[in-house]
Amino acid sequence: MSMDLTFLGTGSAYPSPHRGASALVLRAEGDCWLFDCGEGTQTQLMKSQIKANRITKVFISHLHGDHLFGLPGLLCTVSLHSSAAPSKELEPVEIFGPQGIRKFLRVSLGLSNSQLVFPYVVHELVPTADQCPSDGLLEATETTCDERLHPQEGQGRTLHLDPAQDCYTLVENQQFTVKGFRLFHRIPSFGFVVEERERPGKLKAHVLQELGIKPGPAYGRLKNGQSVTLENGVVVCPADVLEEALPGRKVCILGDCCSLVGDAGHRMCHGADVLVHEATLDDSQKDKALEHGHSTPSMAAQFANACQAKQLILYHFSQRYKPLALFKEHDDDDVMQLKKQAEDILPGKDVILAEDFLTIPIPIKRYN
Amino acid sequence: MSMDLTFLGTGSAYPSPHRGASALVLRAEGDCWLFDCGEGTQTQLMKSQIKANRITKVFISHLHGDHLFGLPGLLCTVSLHSSAAPSKELEPVEIFGPQGIRKFLRVSLGLSNSQLVFPYVVHELVPTADQCPSDGLLEATETTCDERLHPQEGQGRTLHLDPAQDCYTLVENQQFTVKGFRLFHRIPSFGFVVEERERPGKLKAHVLQELGIKPGPAYGRLKNGQSVTLENGVVVCPADVLEEALPGRKVCILGDCCSLVGDAGHRMCHGADVLVHEATLDDSQKDKALEHGHSTPSMAAQFANACQAKQLILYHFSQRYKPLALFKEHDDDDVMQLKKQAEDILPGKDVILAEDFLTIPIPIKRYN
Repeated sequence: MSMDLTFLGTGSAYPSPHRGASALVLRAEGDCWLFDCGEGTQTQLMKSQIKANRITKVFISHLHGDHLFGLPGLLCTVSLHSSAAPSKELEPVEIFGPQGIRKFLRVSLGLSNSQLVFPYVVHELVPTADQCPSDGLLEATETTCDERLHPQEGQGRTLHLDPAQDCYTLVENQQFTVKGFRLFHRIPSFGFVVEERERPGKLKAHVLQELGIKPGPAYGRLKNGQSVTLENGVVVCPADVLEEALPGRKVCILGDCCSLVGDAGHRMCHGADVLVHEATLDDSQKDKALEHGHSTPSMAAQFANACQAKQLILYHFSQRYKPLALFKEHDDDDVMQLKKQAEDILPGKDVILAEDFLTIPIPIKRYN
Repeated sequence: MSMDLTFLGTGSAYPSPHRGASALVLRAEGDCWLFDCGEGTQTQLMKSQIKANRITKVFISHLHGDHLFGLPGLLCTVSLHSSAAPSKELEPVEIFGPQGIRKFLRVSLGLSNSQLVFPYVVHELVPTADQCPSDGLLEATETTCDERLHPQEGQGRTLHLDPAQDCYTLVENQQFTVKGFRLFHRIPSFGFVVEERERPGKLKAHVLQELGIKPGPAYGRLKNGQSVTLENGVVVCPADVLEEALPGRKVCILGDCCSLVGDAGHRMCHGADVLVHEATLDDSQKDKALEHGHSTPSMAAQFANACQAKQLILYHFSQRYKPLALFKEHDDDDVMQLKKQAEDILPGKDVILAEDFLTIPIPIKRYN
């Protein structure tokens, strides 16, 4: 299954003509999952090769406007481009985000009288009080939705921290699990770990031949992990005829943060194939970064190092760092210094600086 | 006083890379008033010559997302670019829009924990039930804000229709009046008339000389409309020494509509120097336009004709009509047909098709 990651916006704080506000798409076999949706994401999608109507899930790391304000408009535009009549039969678009996002969407779509041709549900992550300074916590009155559901809204789940695992379980399907973990920022922020399930190894053709099993339904059953009883009474177990299982890929995407809360993030991101981490300011601005709840390249690299991530991608750059293509010789704020600062912590590794419309393939893994 | 109008977004329904969502700026001596603020307006402003922090008033014609969803982000970004500490001393940014806009801003800015360095107030226009089909009216529960004011929000006014004038009075200052009138659309929509006050004519130097009045405070008093008593007891009235007053300019900007409600719009737009009218679809699509509460070029031109507008500017084009610069010979949807359809109703007049970043100067008027 092909998988890739496309950055639609790599700027922090606000969208600019040089860098869109935060948004990236994880694409797996054409199915698209959107991570954050700053203002202008729909226009960035139009400029990309990604079809907005292939977005089936949306994950919002935190409620700052540069990660959120594009969502109502994106939903409206996807709907306008879908010709179908409104239908509750369709699979709902699932939206995950911090408590308060349900109200934001309900009020935005409600007041603008926006009708969608597809259903949606909002699953809210309930943050813990230690995820931000106290003035970043929303009061109950601010997040409470006493209004009715939007006409196209289905009832979503309220997701509390699983104290045993120190994480939130968002998605569990045949191919993937997605879990959330807590970050520290000015307001509650989350990281997401997308983990592909391991896939059965190839069938060992020569063993099957020796056992006298011919291509057919038995092959499928064995590949799916079921034993098969031959006509001669011999029971063949999948382990007898399958190569080693193929490990799944792991993609970790962190929202804005200056640190983690608890150690779940370290554990869950361990061995990440791709780790996407913010680096708002360069290391010389570390005090300012911390003051605003943000990271620098070396902070990101230290985390990548601690969890032995195979590939670190930096994003969410202050708009002062122009994309490389626009950098002029005597400009002060060279984005390449961010790459260097991260690579100094990760000797021998190539750190990627995300740019708008950069696509990173995530190849199938080989045997462990 | 220099005045001009700059279109930041001329597309309908959603922003695209070719046409931004609805937004235009009326600039008078550097002071900027924003009319509508679709998603991406802040980025369009960055691409233009207009400074976002010069925006002192915002007028939202109706609550559809393509006219509204850019407003929270714009306020946040203007604030980020202002270095001042939060201050209630500053003049508040005044925001005018249909009932519900106060809640939209309060919820968007509140949930995103957005603090502004300037105060703002929201003045809500209360629509009447005949401004749209019944399913486009918001219920009281949808618009009610029972939450506290946002920390930077001042108490705005609730503006009801003045039944005698059939309009809403939004602004009255020394230089301008701004009034709103009712349009018919799928949801309540408004048109705005900005009228510059007439300015006193020039002093007649030879008359002043004959009367023996020397340049000084008396000149200012006469110019300001006050009489002056000379040492010899003669009373000089302004009318004796002033040329005819200079008429003020009148700029009319209509939100989405397929017709007016009442006849105030005709009366108030009479003699407009500039009339900005939507033309979402061309005349061959009139049924579809009406179905969606929109206008075609000939509808806009008929209104311009009825109120003897001196200049008609069309905007809010379906995204199918690409800007002229991107039009290819065999494309079906030539935006120039919209110009022709309007000009057929207005023989001898040049109708302007707005494009993103088009600036139209509005010169000082000469004597009536």
